[in-house]
Amino acid sequence: MCGVFGIFGDPEAANIAYLGLHALQHRGQESAGIVSAEGGRLHVHRVMGLVQAGFGPKELATLPGDRAIGHVRYSTAGGSHLRNAQPFAVDYARGSIAVAHNGNLTNHELLRERLEAKGSIFQSSSDTETIVHLIAASTQRAAPDRVADALREVEGAYSLLLLTSDEMVAVRDPMGIRPLCLGRLTRDGRTAHVVASEATAFSLIGAELVRDVEPGEMIVVDEGGLRSLRPFAPQPRRLCLFEHVYFARPDSTIEGASVYDVRRALGRRLADEHPLPVGDASDSVVIPVPDSGVPHAIGFSGRSGLPFEMGLIRSHYVGRTFIEPQQAIRHFGVRLKLAPNRAVLEGKRVVVIDDSIVRGTTSRKIVRMIREAGAREVHVRIASPPTAWPCYYGIDTPTRAELIASSHTVAEIGRYLGADTIGYLTLDGLVDSVREVEGRAGAPGAPDRYCHACFSGQYPVAFAPSPRARHLRLLGS
Amino acid sequence: MCGVFGIFGDPEAANIAYLGLHALQHRGQESAGIVSAEGGRLHVHRVMGLVQAGFGPKELATLPGDRAIGHVRYSTAGGSHLRNAQPFAVDYARGSIAVAHNGNLTNHELLRERLEAKGSIFQSSSDTETIVHLIAASTQRAAPDRVADALREVEGAYSLLLLTSDEMVAVRDPMGIRPLCLGRLTRDGRTAHVVASEATAFSLIGAELVRDVEPGEMIVVDEGGLRSLRPFAPQPRRLCLFEHVYFARPDSTIEGASVYDVRRALGRRLADEHPLPVGDASDSVVIPVPDSGVPHAIGFSGRSGLPFEMGLIRSHYVGRTFIEPQQAIRHFGVRLKLAPNRAVLEGKRVVVIDDSIVRGTTSRKIVRMIREAGAREVHVRIASPPTAWPCYYGIDTPTRAELIASSHTVAEIGRYLGADTIGYLTLDGLVDSVREVEGRAGAPGAPDRYCHACFSGQYPVAFAPSPRARHLRLLGS
Amino acid sequence: MCGVFGIFGDPEAANIAYLGLHALQHRGQESAGIVSAEGGRLHVHRVMGLVQAGFGPKELATLPGDRAIGHVRYSTAGGSHLRNAQPFAVDYARGSIAVAHNGNLTNHELLRERLEAKGSIFQSSSDTETIVHLIAASTQRAAPDRVADALREVEGAYSLLLLTSDEMVAVRDPMGIRPLCLGRLTRDGRTAHVVASEATAFSLIGAELVRDVEPGEMIVVDEGGLRSLRPFAPQPRRLCLFEHVYFARPDSTIEGASVYDVRRALGRRLADEHPLPVGDASDSVVIPVPDSGVPHAIGFSGRSGLPFEMGLIRSHYVGRTFIEPQQAIRHFGVRLKLAPNRAVLEGKRVVVIDDSIVRGTTSRKIVRMIREAGAREVHVRIASPPTAWPCYYGIDTPTRAELIASSHTVAEIGRYLGADTIGYLTLDGLVDSVREVEGRAGAPGAPDRYCHACFSGQYPVAFAPSPRARHLRLLGS
Amino acid sequence: MCGVFGIFGDPEAANIAYLGLHALQHRGQESAGIVSAEGGRLHVHRVMGLVQAGFGPKELATLPGDRAIGHVRYSTAGGSHLRNAQPFAVDYARGSIAVAHNGNLTNHELLRERLEAKGSIFQSSSDTETIVHLIAASTQRAAPDRVADALREVEGAYSLLLLTSDEMVAVRDPMGIRPLCLGRLTRDGRTAHVVASEATAFSLIGAELVRDVEPGEMIVVDEGGLRSLRPFAPQPRRLCLFEHVYFARPDSTIEGASVYDVRRALGRRLADEHPLPVGDASDSVVIPVPDSGVPHAIGFSGRSGLPFEMGLIRSHYVGRTFIEPQQAIRHFGVRLKLAPNRAVLEGKRVVVIDDSIVRGTTSRKIVRMIREAGAREVHVRIASPPTAWPCYYGIDTPTRAELIASSHTVAEIGRYLGADTIGYLTLDGLVDSVREVEGRAGAPGAPDRYCHACFSGQYPVAFAPSPRARHLRLLGS
Repeated sequence: MCGVFGIFGDPEAANIAYLGLHALQHRGQESAGIVSAEGGRLHVHRVMGLVQAGFGPKELATLPGDRAIGHVRYSTAGGSHLRNAQPFAVDYARGSIAVAHNGNLTNHELLRERLEAKGSIFQSSSDTETIVHLIAASTQRAAPDRVADALREVEGAYSLLLLTSDEMVAVRDPMGIRPLCLGRLTRDGRTAHVVASEATAFSLIGAELVRDVEPGEMIVVDEGGLRSLRPFAPQPRRLCLFEHVYFARPDSTIEGASVYDVRRALGRRLADEHPLPVGDASDSVVIPVPDSGVPHAIGFSGRSGLPFEMGLIRSHYVGRTFIEPQQAIRHFGVRLKLAPNRAVLEGKRVVVIDDSIVRGTTSRKIVRMIREAGAREVHVRIASPPTAWPCYYGIDTPTRAELIASSHTVAEIGRYLGADTIGYLTLDGLVDSVREVEGRAGAPGAPDRYCHACFSGQYPVAFAPSPRARHLRLLGS
Repeated sequence: MCGVFGIFGDPEAANIAYLGLHALQHRGQESAGIVSAEGGRLHVHRVMGLVQAGFGPKELATLPGDRAIGHVRYSTAGGSHLRNAQPFAVDYARGSIAVAHNGNLTNHELLRERLEAKGSIFQSSSDTETIVHLIAASTQRAAPDRVADALREVEGAYSLLLLTSDEMVAVRDPMGIRPLCLGRLTRDGRTAHVVASEATAFSLIGAELVRDVEPGEMIVVDEGGLRSLRPFAPQPRRLCLFEHVYFARPDSTIEGASVYDVRRALGRRLADEHPLPVGDASDSVVIPVPDSGVPHAIGFSGRSGLPFEMGLIRSHYVGRTFIEPQQAIRHFGVRLKLAPNRAVLEGKRVVVIDDSIVRGTTSRKIVRMIREAGAREVHVRIASPPTAWPCYYGIDTPTRAELIASSHTVAEIGRYLGADTIGYLTLDGLVDSVREVEGRAGAPGAPDRYCHACFSGQYPVAFAPSPRARHLRLLGS
Repeated sequence: MCGVFGIFGDPEAANIAYLGLHALQHRGQESAGIVSAEGGRLHVHRVMGLVQAGFGPKELATLPGDRAIGHVRYSTAGGSHLRNAQPFAVDYARGSIAVAHNGNLTNHELLRERLEAKGSIFQSSSDTETIVHLIAASTQRAAPDRVADALREVEGAYSLLLLTSDEMVAVRDPMGIRPLCLGRLTRDGRTAHVVASEATAFSLIGAELVRDVEPGEMIVVDEGGLRSLRPFAPQPRRLCLFEHVYFARPDSTIEGASVYDVRRALGRRLADEHPLPVGDASDSVVIPVPDSGVPHAIGFSGRSGLPFEMGLIRSHYVGRTFIEPQQAIRHFGVRLKLAPNRAVLEGKRVVVIDDSIVRGTTSRKIVRMIREAGAREVHVRIASPPTAWPCYYGIDTPTRAELIASSHTVAEIGRYLGADTIGYLTLDGLVDSVREVEGRAGAPGAPDRYCHACFSGQYPVAFAPSPRARHLRLLGS
Repeated sequence: MCGVFGIFGDPEAANIAYLGLHALQHRGQESAGIVSAEGGRLHVHRVMGLVQAGFGPKELATLPGDRAIGHVRYSTAGGSHLRNAQPFAVDYARGSIAVAHNGNLTNHELLRERLEAKGSIFQSSSDTETIVHLIAASTQRAAPDRVADALREVEGAYSLLLLTSDEMVAVRDPMGIRPLCLGRLTRDGRTAHVVASEATAFSLIGAELVRDVEPGEMIVVDEGGLRSLRPFAPQPRRLCLFEHVYFARPDSTIEGASVYDVRRALGRRLADEHPLPVGDASDSVVIPVPDSGVPHAIGFSGRSGLPFEMGLIRSHYVGRTFIEPQQAIRHFGVRLKLAPNRAVLEGKRVVVIDDSIVRGTTSRKIVRMIREAGAREVHVRIASPPTAWPCYYGIDTPTRAELIASSHTVAEIGRYLGADTIGYLTLDGLVDSVREVEGRAGAPGAPDRYCHACFSGQYPVAFAPSPRARHLRLLGS
């Protein structure tokens, strides 16, 4: 997964991009980069690791100009190398261009082969480089037209930001799989346009959310202002449900729907679908796996009437489990990150709420930890359906073989975890809940307007069944 | 504030100390250190910054032996230099000795002058060095007797761990101001003794909590086992209440009382003492300042019947506000760390719960942030009395002049924050709540058995009214 | 200037490349890189700074395979960024390819424009990327044929190493401006082919010098052995004389001629052309500007009969003046690097020998330093003609305006330096001396078979008169 | 070995100390430190590694004041840790004091035991800490008197600089084993006093050498100016001859004698004592092991009439062999550092000149390297007597067992090296040569006024026969 941020029209563009990327840090911690434009030139700085570690006053001073785009990355393919860091920036016939990409192109291997056959060279293993080659190959004159030309050839998910010396372009793929939103920052009487993967980035910098970039929309910002283009044939919207379930920050809003509200609604629906077995309610507690499970657990607690407590305490000094690239750290990380709170758990019937289960190894350790802290019963409730299919649209899920739900029934999973009972939200429950919150915002998606491929196996975009590893030929930094 | 951890009798002593310190990381992030003993020698490694950043397999391999003590530090005096990192380790006539200290000696300037007059030299500005000089000056033969000799001369708060090649010594000051607890780790059929500032460290390493080290108790662990000594004249216990209010981790237990339970009780009492003004309950929410205010807010919500929600979302990528040494970062840190969750706040009467207010600058920004996110009313509730007095026993509070409550009435503070109403817990409410939870654990402290100097100005130990800066003569690393 | 090293057929290819690059470190200190090939993949590691700082056991372990090429770089254009580090490695239609380049293409701006017009994108500002695009654009099938195709389009100086998964290719431009030599390393009964910019790299690794790669020769090494190809139309050889004067290591041999012997011969000829004015020989000394001036001074001393002494002592802790990129450091560096040896200089007529003068600022400080140390007279002797023209073939000389000899007569330079007398070697003297030493090796070049453009302004290859800065559009790392 | 530098009375004291230490870098590369004084406080910065790596503008800005002392260190005992870096700085009863020490105290174990018995604690393993304890224990009032008091108790070699907030004190031990010299720096009409281990440091900063600090002299510089004291009973001078043979820089002057002149004289005497065996002089060359052997080889060449050539080329990118702490690097370092120059060596009778032989392993590799480069004969000439005894006065020699000359005859050493002939200078030859150069400077030492213990085993100061490792109890950083 990745996060993108762009700003056009503020004298401190790079500084603000730095803050915007910090707010999107949860979307990728492997590398960070900012490209600014001034005087007909692009200025680039990219680093491995967190934004705050790699960008200081000295680095930001090398990024002049009133326009900038930035990127935080978690690798979905290729090694963990600076070479794959974004924004990707090149010179081509029409000048320089930089691209920041959130998503994944499903036909990029084919495109890459075609481009290589014509003589193109590739320096990274990222699909983003493919986009730039297509832009360079376009016969159009204006940058936005070239970008549209290029994107008409690609398939898959993308929320893109592009920067040239003259304009910033933001595009969301026709199905709108990944989020992207548009805002306005007014400082000292001057208004800049801002674009970000999530609206929480606007909140930090004091910008105002204007609206979401719409599926298939291309927004061009230049000295003359902002234009909205529709270069693609319309397609049904297919918003990624996993953004709501887990990925986005709870204070973000996606197409009008508060992520926090959605998660609470998921928790409420989960309580309806999988209530605690009949028993003594007076010694039952609902606890989240923090922090991602907190809103779901608040919803479950509210609907079930069982008290919400913090039965697991999270350390502030370890990063997000799902996003760490090395298995060893992830493995060890569970105990380093979460501590059982015996005062809450001892002697209790514990309902533990999590957003999803990937491999099951972490959940199993959590169940054991809760039981060792004295819980009488442990009831696992998951606020989404079983994750049984890999994502090909930008989320770094493991292969099918590693997804526990792809080869185990729910009952088997419950036994593996050591839970007394287990309940997953139904897909209908998930879709209904999201629609309900979207509805309150005035714009409920039709039931089939979501991507739930990771739960259902119904992929809205065809993809090469077994992506070859050819683009990994070049290894290293 | 600082954290200490010790282990005696496990072949991987340094590795376990590393994990133990990680669990105590919230008690100090400025420096970290471990000293192990093997073959009559002490092995030392100390670094600036976090435990996980400064200790890797290579560093841990330089720390052999089956006994080790460790320390995480937040400077209470002196500069932020490696020289002041702990454990403090020296050679003296009887061998080598290392000391890890949590607390603060109130008479150390006088002791230092006396020692210097006799010819002692000082290399650090920490009071810990004073303790070591006193140990070296003792005429006793055995290390524990020398330590007792030394500590009879000091005044103030200390939870100490000492390591020589032959023994580990743990001491808690006669008033028991700082916590310290004793545990047992059994691995591969071998049992090691462990000591830590908080029991959460035992939880991580899989050790069992045996009991708290008692005020005035000295525990000596050597090859022959564990002995408990009582070298000091008995004094009334004076446990620091701020550990319960803010400092300790909620999953820790201090003298039998769960910190989480205490905090929930504080929240309940706060709801009784300062309920929301009469109004429409249907649009009211209780939100914590995360993470420290969460248990208090759960308590407040439970008692008041108003719903608990996460109205402020915490970034995982910035450290703990209170503990950062530089004003600039702390200042900027509020926005980088907390984001308003508009879905929860908009149009609502918001009760925001925090554990305490120090300078007031952070709270003021939080109130403004909540209001800008659309809250109709903002009611501030603080789960402790006004913090009006500096701590001289080991917590890094600012000077009196910087404590907003030392020069402003509660009403003035409320106006400064921009709150509709404000309510602080009473000192009676605080003491009663702690006693209530201690009572459930079977051992309620008498009402006067706590240190609440930071709230009341009643200092249990006299201190030099204006500590001179003489020990700061030597600056640098 | 840059250095290249390649090896094919040794199980420790990357380790040996590491050593080879260390021996070539004097040719470039800005960045270093190694690419190895194994299992159909290329493995890359590139760093800023010295070889020994950026490559340790951990990095070398990521470079498996029995073939590798490496590069040390001093930037001739573009910023000092990792992006411009070499070897340059990409994927293209026929697989992966890596290129290490010493030299400079004089028509690369034109080629780049042409390639961009066809849709190519450029990520670096180096001319090396242009070569790779040309290779990718070739319609030939086999890699060596594609390389030949590509190089037929370029003009300028190049000694190139290329690595694919199947072969290593070494090419020297038709005029042989930059050196390149071929060797053989036998270890454990297995023989590997090695190629390096200078034979000193073979000396370090224990390899045997076979011969120089000939101007216009392309050597292809694969599993089947070594082939020599002649893909270009023959041209007169034009070996760079500055390699002999300054750049190459004295223990290297270029086309049979020992660099050390050449430098001694230059010193002897200089003594003939510019003897010390008549005076008391008993108090005269010949001193070099160390280390580069040492062999020239030994030659001058031998011919003149005046004693050779070390009148300037070089610090071991500062790098090579000529090669440091920042003016500030170069400026300050003179005093940090060279100290006057009063015991040698005081009261003496001092002949100070240097290989060349670029800006004159360093020489001026040296003359003053010698005089302040008590020298009665200071006679400057330079073992090459005045450097009055910039190099467009790979040596990082400053612009014409900065070259003191482009705007000052020899007499003016002498006055500027504060020298009593000054003498530069004549171009005839230089050419004759090199020919004499080459003659001893059996192969004297014809008098017009050298590139002495920096001295004469006679450029053997036409070049774009004012290279545009267009390729600098993209700044940063 | 170590180097010290001090300055009193220049507004940029720390900057100048930085330059001074750079000039003394050859005396120690393990750690570097500067202490400045301003406003009654000492300011400290110490780092591992080279001066130029650890001190930048930011660090120097933390060292205000017009007085400073500095130190570069190569550890003679204790681990390679920042804790042992100097200057050593402490607080004691009379204020703060910092000490920079070159030398070694032979009775410091006894003193340490005595101090520990009285209650002193030790944090480092260096003998310098002992000096500070003695200063603190003195009953005198003024700092210089306390220093004198302390030094009357120590035995061994020391050239010391001390800094308090009010004065800088420089002391040389009564036998003057280690050098120390006094200078004057005039800038902007203001004159500062400077002190350094070697006069080359004055040369770099533009200061004037006034004279050597005399054996047993204590120089006190304060606001009132400079005073010379004689606090010790006079003893015969015992200057370390190894400073002349190897350690000092050739451009330095020790007690009036140019180190360069001494080395040339040693080379001449060596040529007299051990001429090349009768043979064809026309194909003989004299080559140094660079850089330290260069002046000796120039002397040998001049006296013998055989031509001086650079037969071994030194890489600029590897540090000084003798001084690297790890055997592995030293071992590998020979080939990385020196390359044979075949043009000089092939077919020749080679006389290779080195200053000394320690273990013999390096020399052996050099002989083999020369032979492999085609030399017909290799004749080793060493410009000092066999090094058969360890140094207890501050030079980091290996133990006796590792010194090849302690267990092998000269003939055996020659065979081990693989030399055709070998010749060491006699002790008489060494002493005579030094006296001869000193004589030219007007002050020849009496023949018995030198320390040549490493050659003769005649130690001028008694020492504990087997220094115990007790002070190594504390390991780590």
